[in-house]
Amino acid sequence: MLAARAREVIRRCRLLAECSEEPGWTTRTFLSRPMRAVHGDLAAWMGDLEMTVRVDAAGNLRGVYPGLHADAPRLFIGSHLDTVPHAGAFDGVLGVVLAIALVDLLNGNRFPFAIEVVGFSEEEGVRFGVPFIGSRAFAGSADAAVLEQRDIAGVSVADAIRDYGLDPSSISAARAGANALGYLEFHIEQGPVLDSLGIPLGVVDAIAGQTRAEVAFTGAAGHAGTTPMRGRRDALAAAAEWIVAVEREANATPELVATVGRVSADPGAGNVIAARCSATLDVRHADDAVRRAACERLAAEAQEIAARRGVDLAWTSRLDQPAVPMNAALVAALERAVSRAGAPVHHLVSGAGHDAMIVASRMPAAMLFVRSPGGLSHHPDEDVVEEDVAMALEVGRHFLDQLS
Amino acid sequence: MLAARAREVIRRCRLLAECSEEPGWTTRTFLSRPMRAVHGDLAAWMGDLEMTVRVDAAGNLRGVYPGLHADAPRLFIGSHLDTVPHAGAFDGVLGVVLAIALVDLLNGNRFPFAIEVVGFSEEEGVRFGVPFIGSRAFAGSADAAVLEQRDIAGVSVADAIRDYGLDPSSISAARAGANALGYLEFHIEQGPVLDSLGIPLGVVDAIAGQTRAEVAFTGAAGHAGTTPMRGRRDALAAAAEWIVAVEREANATPELVATVGRVSADPGAGNVIAARCSATLDVRHADDAVRRAACERLAAEAQEIAARRGVDLAWTSRLDQPAVPMNAALVAALERAVSRAGAPVHHLVSGAGHDAMIVASRMPAAMLFVRSPGGLSHHPDEDVVEEDVAMALEVGRHFLDQLS
Repeated sequence: MLAARAREVIRRCRLLAECSEEPGWTTRTFLSRPMRAVHGDLAAWMGDLEMTVRVDAAGNLRGVYPGLHADAPRLFIGSHLDTVPHAGAFDGVLGVVLAIALVDLLNGNRFPFAIEVVGFSEEEGVRFGVPFIGSRAFAGSADAAVLEQRDIAGVSVADAIRDYGLDPSSISAARAGANALGYLEFHIEQGPVLDSLGIPLGVVDAIAGQTRAEVAFTGAAGHAGTTPMRGRRDALAAAAEWIVAVEREANATPELVATVGRVSADPGAGNVIAARCSATLDVRHADDAVRRAACERLAAEAQEIAARRGVDLAWTSRLDQPAVPMNAALVAALERAVSRAGAPVHHLVSGAGHDAMIVASRMPAAMLFVRSPGGLSHHPDEDVVEEDVAMALEVGRHFLDQLS
Repeated sequence: MLAARAREVIRRCRLLAECSEEPGWTTRTFLSRPMRAVHGDLAAWMGDLEMTVRVDAAGNLRGVYPGLHADAPRLFIGSHLDTVPHAGAFDGVLGVVLAIALVDLLNGNRFPFAIEVVGFSEEEGVRFGVPFIGSRAFAGSADAAVLEQRDIAGVSVADAIRDYGLDPSSISAARAGANALGYLEFHIEQGPVLDSLGIPLGVVDAIAGQTRAEVAFTGAAGHAGTTPMRGRRDALAAAAEWIVAVEREANATPELVATVGRVSADPGAGNVIAARCSATLDVRHADDAVRRAACERLAAEAQEIAARRGVDLAWTSRLDQPAVPMNAALVAALERAVSRAGAPVHHLVSGAGHDAMIVASRMPAAMLFVRSPGGLSHHPDEDVVEEDVAMALEVGRHFLDQLS
């Protein structure tokens, strides 16, 4: 029976993936035109379950399944509805469609708590360069500055909200009430860990903290043919030495990931020694102390390399975001639910940011990862395994039983 | 007396630097409008010395100072008149202005050989992406393909020659006659070697051979947060390891220079592991065997790195240009001339290409480098030292005496 439900969840996700700004692809940014069709389908499915549906002033779709009593506390279950450009069908949307399927599974039975399904309007940060607009409003941390962000067409967040027929001045009303029991998010892993272990589901212990920086070495340009090796101040060679050190540092520190994903050299001609080379740094770990110590070692290595080579170093910090632990009680409940569903219990840390990370500042939060075949995400071939989705539904049912 | 002559040479070079396509800069490409003014000034100065001046069908300015007899062989002295964008005042032009000053020094005395001053129309390759158009025509190696090259405006070399009032179909007539005695080129070093040694002039033994290649590593993209270090196939990390190896190889091989001047990573986002990273390679050495062996070791290192990391390697050769030795007899004559002028004799290999490299295929060729303060070239601050220019004139006079 759950297999059929899982198939329906996957069918619905693939149906919603057709709501796109770009024909032939799935691209759906904050309150863009295709978001209306997504809201329409989800609202219809929730309406079938006699849920009360609204779109809040931050553009989040919210459907309430009442509890046994009118003043019952509320459990939120959700994820986001926006996508990256040329996305797959499951990143975000799966968590919302699964939540609705879970309410459907209850067959009208009530709990001592209400269930509110939330489809966040914005998580990816594509349209405005600022992520988590929906969940920040939900957590009460979306300030006026968020509303003033503009997309490349010059349209502000406030404009976009207004264009959708909503009132940006009411954004504070999007904040979750004080009677929140907690927040549960189902999400694909977007990484290869569960798949490589052959495990369908993962209990998230924490969202990793993150450091981002821009690291620039400045030496001296020179003719590649007429400048002897001795005395060169080659900015690109300095950067390369440091990039190798970044990887070595990450390999030597358990659970640390460190990535240089972009590099550029100036003037950038094959026969000219680079005068300047800049590179990005992205470092993540569940333990902030471990992450920061690693970043300090990487900065010291950059300084040592720069000093030895007679080049200048500019280290610009872009982000220092602490790790966010999931709520211990909810994690324990989730772990028991996974066990009861007969699945192996595997804990992991999310290297990617998620709405749960934002919501955790407002209420207890927990996340369950669903295996990503091949670790593939942010790609049209992003997929899920039907049995894993069925297992996630089963876990969700046990989780609700635990809470009640 | 030579000091005053040197000052005049420098004054003339700076005057010609004002003939530019861009006001405020020195930018003068193949047969561009300002080249006409340069030809005009140089022709006037040569006319004052009763030299016979013409512009050949390749746009080279050529002025003949007759020998003692009508059928005397001919010594060519010259360099190029075009510049890079935002150039200095001495790269190329100095060699032509110096040659005229040298003829002036003769006070009408004749040698058993004629002297022909050549101002090549094109050496830098800026306008058509193909260097040495002038000297290739002079050496008889400019084929029809050269004439068909087009600039970004779609104007071909043949069009440009025609627009200048010349006949491209006569380009073969630009070829130097069979009675050539040899070719001498004065040129700024464009590198820091003489300046760092405190030596005014350098006798060029050879133009270094050159390898250019494009080296691309292809791994797999992945999320910087969700992909563990183990199992990554990071193309940028692979490239960085190899770039460090390139520098190490050059440092370990005497007189070898090896440069990676450009690098780019795809997709090139800070939070995405690079799927592809390409880098340029530029390797130069006077000894082709040394250069090729070094390139083979660099290719082997790239293969080893790629294999160990599970990434693919694509090595695309762009250039494999053999070294060009200068003529031994002319080098010996130049060395004696430097000695007689009272300057220290320092031999070096030119890491950059020069017209002499092309002309050497047609006749004995030699080059004398003039110190570049700070090694600076291809830059508005490019300079020469007055005493060095005076010394070069003195060397030129002794060189002519040697030959006669």
